[in-house]
Amino acid sequence: MNIEVLKEDIDRWLSDYFNNKGNFNKTIYESMRYSLEVGGKRIRPILMILTYSLYKDNYEEILPCACALEMIHTYSLIHDDLPCMDNDSLRRGKPTNHIVFGEAMALLAGDGLLNEAFNIILNEALVKGETWLKAGSIIGKSSGVEGMIGGQVVDILSTNKAATEEELYYIHNKKTGELIKGAILSGAVLGKAEERELNILKEYGEKLGLAFQIKDDILDIVGNTATLGKSVNKDSDQNKTTFIKIYGLDKCKEMMNSITEECIALLNNINADTTNLKNLTLFLLKRDY
Amino acid sequence: MNIEVLKEDIDRWLSDYFNNKGNFNKTIYESMRYSLEVGGKRIRPILMILTYSLYKDNYEEILPCACALEMIHTYSLIHDDLPCMDNDSLRRGKPTNHIVFGEAMALLAGDGLLNEAFNIILNEALVKGETWLKAGSIIGKSSGVEGMIGGQVVDILSTNKAATEEELYYIHNKKTGELIKGAILSGAVLGKAEERELNILKEYGEKLGLAFQIKDDILDIVGNTATLGKSVNKDSDQNKTTFIKIYGLDKCKEMMNSITEECIALLNNINADTTNLKNLTLFLLKRDY
Repeated sequence: MNIEVLKEDIDRWLSDYFNNKGNFNKTIYESMRYSLEVGGKRIRPILMILTYSLYKDNYEEILPCACALEMIHTYSLIHDDLPCMDNDSLRRGKPTNHIVFGEAMALLAGDGLLNEAFNIILNEALVKGETWLKAGSIIGKSSGVEGMIGGQVVDILSTNKAATEEELYYIHNKKTGELIKGAILSGAVLGKAEERELNILKEYGEKLGLAFQIKDDILDIVGNTATLGKSVNKDSDQNKTTFIKIYGLDKCKEMMNSITEECIALLNNINADTTNLKNLTLFLLKRDY
Repeated sequence: MNIEVLKEDIDRWLSDYFNNKGNFNKTIYESMRYSLEVGGKRIRPILMILTYSLYKDNYEEILPCACALEMIHTYSLIHDDLPCMDNDSLRRGKPTNHIVFGEAMALLAGDGLLNEAFNIILNEALVKGETWLKAGSIIGKSSGVEGMIGGQVVDILSTNKAATEEELYYIHNKKTGELIKGAILSGAVLGKAEERELNILKEYGEKLGLAFQIKDDILDIVGNTATLGKSVNKDSDQNKTTFIKIYGLDKCKEMMNSITEECIALLNNINADTTNLKNLTLFLLKRDY
């Protein structure tokens, strides 16, 4: 499977979905579309589809669900960038949503994307049955107050004060990890993976999510704005506790390498061709943007 | 059925749901609970339950779904009150969420309530089957960008400029009307109402939603802060177009009376005891808070 083609399919689905919609409320479609089309690596839907594709070869079937997950991710970025949160004016090299559309519209665009994601999930489940409902429930849990939002909450509470190691793991596992784990787990459920492999993929998802965030912490120190398309040194500017602060850069790089190996080892236990997932894992953990 | 007892059941369910939850993320539960427990008339869940009760007599069965709808309503109030939206510091006689918990937490509490509402809907559907999924889909549509959020969008766009009569109807039908219609329609679907009565109840819901908002416009002029528990003259302060501005107070009162009659006439066409729904309709449209 070609990841580039997959990414184009996702981009096209999202673009079509919001095309020519709205009348008096047209602006919110423009605002939601703006943030969806600003780019992004589409990591979460791709992870969902690659996991599903371990078991099935008709990934078009889960494209709406995968795109719903990307909509949830995008809403979280829009709200995260708002002045009352991270107050960021640059995202993926472009002005953030509230800079272009104003704060009120950005707030509503975020709300709208979250709501619309669940509408897609509910409608898919209505047409396609219980497995889709189970996948939707996994996604909803991963984005909620015990998932991603929970991580954002503790992140906010820890700004300008030293977070403990335990809190830092909580933030990273929840804020970034949950949605990545949710992508993998919902993909496995949609592919009807058996119990043993579900558990392996769950563990893989957890490790990948954590490693992904450690990588983000590293890039915030060693990356540059042009390549990343977002501000660097944000964490230290906001006086946030990061893995780098607790363990130092060298130790973090070591951790990255060992978690990467653990991820690959887990995938080796799956009775299917995991080449694509392995390549994506290596790409994500060795990326410089 | 005693409405007061029903309201207590709803209050208790919501309070229990959020009780003793969270660890590092405890604050968001406090924030969500604060706004849920600040009071409110619980109109939407009560409407859902009264409609359901036209057909079934085990309303405890739909209590989680009804409370999910109240959570959606509450999230919309939290976000509406934020500085970048209506910038309101008083709601139901108490400080608004962001005054107590700060803007970032209020934003996340709103996101959390919306997400959690869908988690409840998905889990109920997993346990109870397709009818619940249909009801969830109605609720999700009513709160989304073609429903409540759409109304908020046009409301924002119309602030400080004259809205046309058509825009005003759009705002009112969507911003307030959709969730009220959604409450009634989802209640009817959960009660397995037949097609003919579904259509009657849908029309009733549309009219009730519109009348409810005209009543709000009237109360914003003739009500007082102590009774209403919120600021008055907000609309004219914010230079918003209202029904009063377009038709004048007397004509609005006339409209209220005739819509109220139409609502009662629609309920007379239902083959069930609609006494409770009629009483609630009369209460809502004659209330002074």
